[in-house]
Amino acid sequence: MTSKLFSFLAPKTIAVVGASKDPSKRGYQAIARLLNDDFDGLIYPVNPREPEILGLRAYAHVSALPGDVDLAFICTPASSLPAVLADCARKHARGAIVLAAGFSEAGEPGRALEARAMAIARKHGIRVIGPNTNGVLNMHRRMNLVGLSDVERGSIGVVSQSGNVMLALAAEAKRKGAVGFSTYIGVGNQADVEFHEYLLHLSEDPDTAVPVFYVEGFKAGRAFLDAAAKVTPSKPVVVYKSGRTESGKRSASSHTGSLAAGFNLTRDLLRQSGVIVVSESDKILSVAEALARMPLPRGSRVGVLADSGGHGTIMADALEDAGMSLAELSAGTVAELRSILPSAASILNPIDVAGATDNDPGVFASCARALLADENVSILVIAGMFGGYAARFTQSFLDVEVETSRAISALARTYDKPVLVQSVYMPLKPAPLMELLKGTIPVFIWAETAATCVAELVRLAQARARLAKGPRRILLQQQSSAAAIIACAQDEGREALLEPESRELLVAYGIDVPSHYLMQSSEDADAAVFSLAAPSFAMKIVSPDVLHKSEAGGVELRVRGVDGVRKGYEAIVGRVRSDYSEARIEGVMVAPMAKPGVEVIIGVIRDPVFGPVIMFGIGGVFVEILKDVSFRAIPVNRDDVVEMIDQIEGNAILNGARGMPPVDREALIDLLLAVSDVIQLHQEIRELDLNPVILHDRGYTIVDSRIIVGKDGCD
Amino acid sequence: MTSKLFSFLAPKTIAVVGASKDPSKRGYQAIARLLNDDFDGLIYPVNPREPEILGLRAYAHVSALPGDVDLAFICTPASSLPAVLADCARKHARGAIVLAAGFSEAGEPGRALEARAMAIARKHGIRVIGPNTNGVLNMHRRMNLVGLSDVERGSIGVVSQSGNVMLALAAEAKRKGAVGFSTYIGVGNQADVEFHEYLLHLSEDPDTAVPVFYVEGFKAGRAFLDAAAKVTPSKPVVVYKSGRTESGKRSASSHTGSLAAGFNLTRDLLRQSGVIVVSESDKILSVAEALARMPLPRGSRVGVLADSGGHGTIMADALEDAGMSLAELSAGTVAELRSILPSAASILNPIDVAGATDNDPGVFASCARALLADENVSILVIAGMFGGYAARFTQSFLDVEVETSRAISALARTYDKPVLVQSVYMPLKPAPLMELLKGTIPVFIWAETAATCVAELVRLAQARARLAKGPRRILLQQQSSAAAIIACAQDEGREALLEPESRELLVAYGIDVPSHYLMQSSEDADAAVFSLAAPSFAMKIVSPDVLHKSEAGGVELRVRGVDGVRKGYEAIVGRVRSDYSEARIEGVMVAPMAKPGVEVIIGVIRDPVFGPVIMFGIGGVFVEILKDVSFRAIPVNRDDVVEMIDQIEGNAILNGARGMPPVDREALIDLLLAVSDVIQLHQEIRELDLNPVILHDRGYTIVDSRIIVGKDGCD
Repeated sequence: MTSKLFSFLAPKTIAVVGASKDPSKRGYQAIARLLNDDFDGLIYPVNPREPEILGLRAYAHVSALPGDVDLAFICTPASSLPAVLADCARKHARGAIVLAAGFSEAGEPGRALEARAMAIARKHGIRVIGPNTNGVLNMHRRMNLVGLSDVERGSIGVVSQSGNVMLALAAEAKRKGAVGFSTYIGVGNQADVEFHEYLLHLSEDPDTAVPVFYVEGFKAGRAFLDAAAKVTPSKPVVVYKSGRTESGKRSASSHTGSLAAGFNLTRDLLRQSGVIVVSESDKILSVAEALARMPLPRGSRVGVLADSGGHGTIMADALEDAGMSLAELSAGTVAELRSILPSAASILNPIDVAGATDNDPGVFASCARALLADENVSILVIAGMFGGYAARFTQSFLDVEVETSRAISALARTYDKPVLVQSVYMPLKPAPLMELLKGTIPVFIWAETAATCVAELVRLAQARARLAKGPRRILLQQQSSAAAIIACAQDEGREALLEPESRELLVAYGIDVPSHYLMQSSEDADAAVFSLAAPSFAMKIVSPDVLHKSEAGGVELRVRGVDGVRKGYEAIVGRVRSDYSEARIEGVMVAPMAKPGVEVIIGVIRDPVFGPVIMFGIGGVFVEILKDVSFRAIPVNRDDVVEMIDQIEGNAILNGARGMPPVDREALIDLLLAVSDVIQLHQEIRELDLNPVILHDRGYTIVDSRIIVGKDGCD
Repeated sequence: MTSKLFSFLAPKTIAVVGASKDPSKRGYQAIARLLNDDFDGLIYPVNPREPEILGLRAYAHVSALPGDVDLAFICTPASSLPAVLADCARKHARGAIVLAAGFSEAGEPGRALEARAMAIARKHGIRVIGPNTNGVLNMHRRMNLVGLSDVERGSIGVVSQSGNVMLALAAEAKRKGAVGFSTYIGVGNQADVEFHEYLLHLSEDPDTAVPVFYVEGFKAGRAFLDAAAKVTPSKPVVVYKSGRTESGKRSASSHTGSLAAGFNLTRDLLRQSGVIVVSESDKILSVAEALARMPLPRGSRVGVLADSGGHGTIMADALEDAGMSLAELSAGTVAELRSILPSAASILNPIDVAGATDNDPGVFASCARALLADENVSILVIAGMFGGYAARFTQSFLDVEVETSRAISALARTYDKPVLVQSVYMPLKPAPLMELLKGTIPVFIWAETAATCVAELVRLAQARARLAKGPRRILLQQQSSAAAIIACAQDEGREALLEPESRELLVAYGIDVPSHYLMQSSEDADAAVFSLAAPSFAMKIVSPDVLHKSEAGGVELRVRGVDGVRKGYEAIVGRVRSDYSEARIEGVMVAPMAKPGVEVIIGVIRDPVFGPVIMFGIGGVFVEILKDVSFRAIPVNRDDVVEMIDQIEGNAILNGARGMPPVDREALIDLLLAVSDVIQLHQEIRELDLNPVILHDRGYTIVDSRIIVGKDGCD
């Protein structure tokens, strides 16, 4: 391991503080394990009452050690931590792993203790893992400071908020065989080192092919997103986010705020950064294994080769459930498969060999070659009973099958396409399947697992293509007129911009806002109608004291002609004055009624964990009933925006459902990008709601805009 | 086995036709296996060229046997089948299992051969399993006619269209331990016995607790639904329906027809009959096992007891994903758990014991008692590492853990509530978990599997409550006026009723249809407006030759006043005449414009597999974009209808979203029930579309109705 970030995780010297002669204590177990595993470095037991532990000379204090230490493994009680860390500093410790509980997770006194200890650590440049961690494991350095036994060595690095989840993953890897771990880090309270730093650390660890995170909650979510966007283009990253069902309570002062809660937001933002988000605990290791083994596909169409109609169909079902589509085979492939397989075989994808492999399992390789050579096939899945022919029929098949495995592995390399195998016989670990696992080909018992892996491989390939385009350069320049609008509201102690102000701000950035007229008296009706020249109008009160305009009677719709506008003015002002006698009325805004089209919602919040986030949804039931909205961290690039539109379940409505023409998608994309730019340019904008925006076949109409600013340059 | 239906599946005498001395032949393997397994009955090898096979006297023909046979196991080539069956009849065979392929699955000559053979079988009362089956297995009679080895004996009965799927299930059961099979039947081509008959057979089989079906396609789907509705109240039935992704092509002449395709329809109808539909192949056996072991819950709220915060949270996530909710614990339970557990424990469901079990695994039982005694907890799930304490800590825990298992089993019996355990240690099959499996408690490795089982237990309990209410009695009486309308259309060779006819038919059954006026000339405008007395009207052409009224210019909406109606008539008739000069015009129907409300769609089709099916959907995007519709087989009872409404994703809109009052749900329920009645009373009605129906806060308006009848008393 050559990680520059945390070299103390590959230490040459470890001080075990709280070393013990009692085999039930972690301070004994750690030393015993290091000795047993032939740890390649110096171990210093630290215990003020013992001269010697497990044959090693023990020291009363860290400061009594004969030399410096890289890493302190601290097993002493919570209250001792400040003193121990100060003592470690004298020997230039660069890192500490702190097991004790009783810190910030245990109420106020613990919080104070944690803060005190961390201040000392920071002062001396000691990075702390934990407290309240169950430890750290580095398989490639034979450093097992966690007490897990029976962990297979491999290339998956686990960072977890639960030690028992690692225990489950280790047990699963043991059962599967041929998959294992490079490292495990229990993050504990994350009082110092946090998830994003572990991610950067593992990104530099050559022993780790796939970092896997079990996350109950992010503290610095934005930092994780930024780190992930750097790492995922070259190394796959897997996250299982638990606690999805707790209804994450966040700011609900805006419509966007009320929708921007919970797992969907986290999932969208992680995926934006190229992270593979796994939602089922039984698929974490399989997905990590698939990502570790295989090349990424160059397309998304799957070929399925089965030696059982049943398993082929089940695989097709599972792939469809995972959002994948089967490849349509080229004529040449169909012809070649026909020449290989008997007439009873089904050559339509999924391919059913119809018993052709029963006499010669080598037929799998011939069929695999034909399918992999097909340009329409980006991924090959072999489903059914491969690997079990010797067990099913005759032991003499074993050599043929192993040969076939080698041939399939070679084909996967030649064509540089992912090949996955699902076999009923995997639990028996027969030689042909073990042979596949030596190469790049993962083997799964269940169709559903294989299908999830296929879907995530495709997703990562797509994310990399998107990330490769880099963050989009802000096209807009900060406009002094916009800054002045915000400053004016702040000066007046207002958080919500008046709607004419919001519109002016958007217009300053070239966002298309329909012209409006601000009436100051009913006498302005003539001028309003003349200047706007529309068949009918929407009228809205403009007042810093009226937040909910409709409820206050401050809105009139479909108003026609000068007379209508005059009466509309009087009606609105009359109602508002009677209900809110103190309200400052800036006037009544008149704008042309929008043409019909598809209503959408665009919103921005500043999430406490992830920072500025843009939301998109289609109005009506999609947002109101189905909560069908998508999120992206700002800044977004064009691909992000296209994906966030396509992700909405009802996005087909944008293509012209219900007798309407297709909407102007390009204009929508430009609008979302411009909003992202505006938020980047104005850190003071806390929330923004464009709700609704009506999309037309050409352009859009922003019907209502609402911008909330911090009282003083917030965020 | 005492099944009256197919006693030949527990035969006393078996003739193996095509018996062989070649160990690679099924005619050898079957006899060898029967002998090896100590089959308790007579085995007659039948082979014209061998005097003796495997030590048994062989006979040249079945008719040469010394006595009658119960079952003929036929391994001879396809072409021999008619003669063999005729020969079997002479010895009064009651059943035959036919292995050979080359029948209806193999094109026209095979189809003819199959028909010929089946005619002979029917004539002689021989029931046939297959052809093209891989055989039958009866574990409790030691009758293995399928060649699968290593099958665990148990209470799950599998009926499958794929032999290899059974192979996968058998392998899974072997791995799990403590779960096994009563029987396996490969259905082959189902030329004679079909799925519903196997279901009735297994319902009578005392050795089978849970019949499991792997179905690629139903032939007599309605018969299966009827059988299932009889069986599921007393025996759980599981179906995995494969080939879900093929877009089942059905009649698409109606809007309903175009939506009524594929897996969703099948799934809805199976569930209506109480069938448990499993969608993931890796959950089939687990769900069957859970159903076989446990009592059904009396409610749907789950208590989760975990010895790891991570696993508790993962279980909560998985339960939520499966549509389940966690129980809110009563104050007494919280107090009791507080007295048992340390202060660090989380007493909010999911319960995290926070290490309390590390020193005494018996704490699991005390907590389980508290949770099971809570009325708010209908189901208990124990998650994490139970069963692994001896392995994790000290072997001396083993006895405590086994005792705890016994205590938990006893508690489950005492409180008669389902208890499920998820344990990381299950693959090691430790004694405490094996002890649980001796009782009624299933153990799973994965949270997702346990959560699916919980959801399906709840679903079955709910289905039983619904089915217990019995089929609803038809409340309506056949109306001669309705029959006359249909007969009139049939006499005139029309399939589509004219809209006034459709309305009259519905009115005859007390269905609320808005009054209308049929104008014969523009002179009728006065009378129409006078008689309908509404502020505005919808006008539609009535012509047997105009099917698509809007496209033909045959519709005018929001028409006002006598003058408007007169002009509307002229405009409609003018447009239709100019485009369809030959069209017979019966007049123009005028009806009041409907009040606003929530648009829904009610449709009926006669599905070729499942018979009459009613569909419900909410108009707009739910149907058009999301295809969010629900199906039920007719007849429906009130609970069916309530469930089919609640099943729609957007059903919240009925409760008064977007500022509207809640709709009149009772009126909607009555309408759906009345439609079901009408379809039962009139077998001639092939399709019915009420689209849209607008639901109001009181009552509804059927805006458009379309009824298609068979040319002559079809169906």
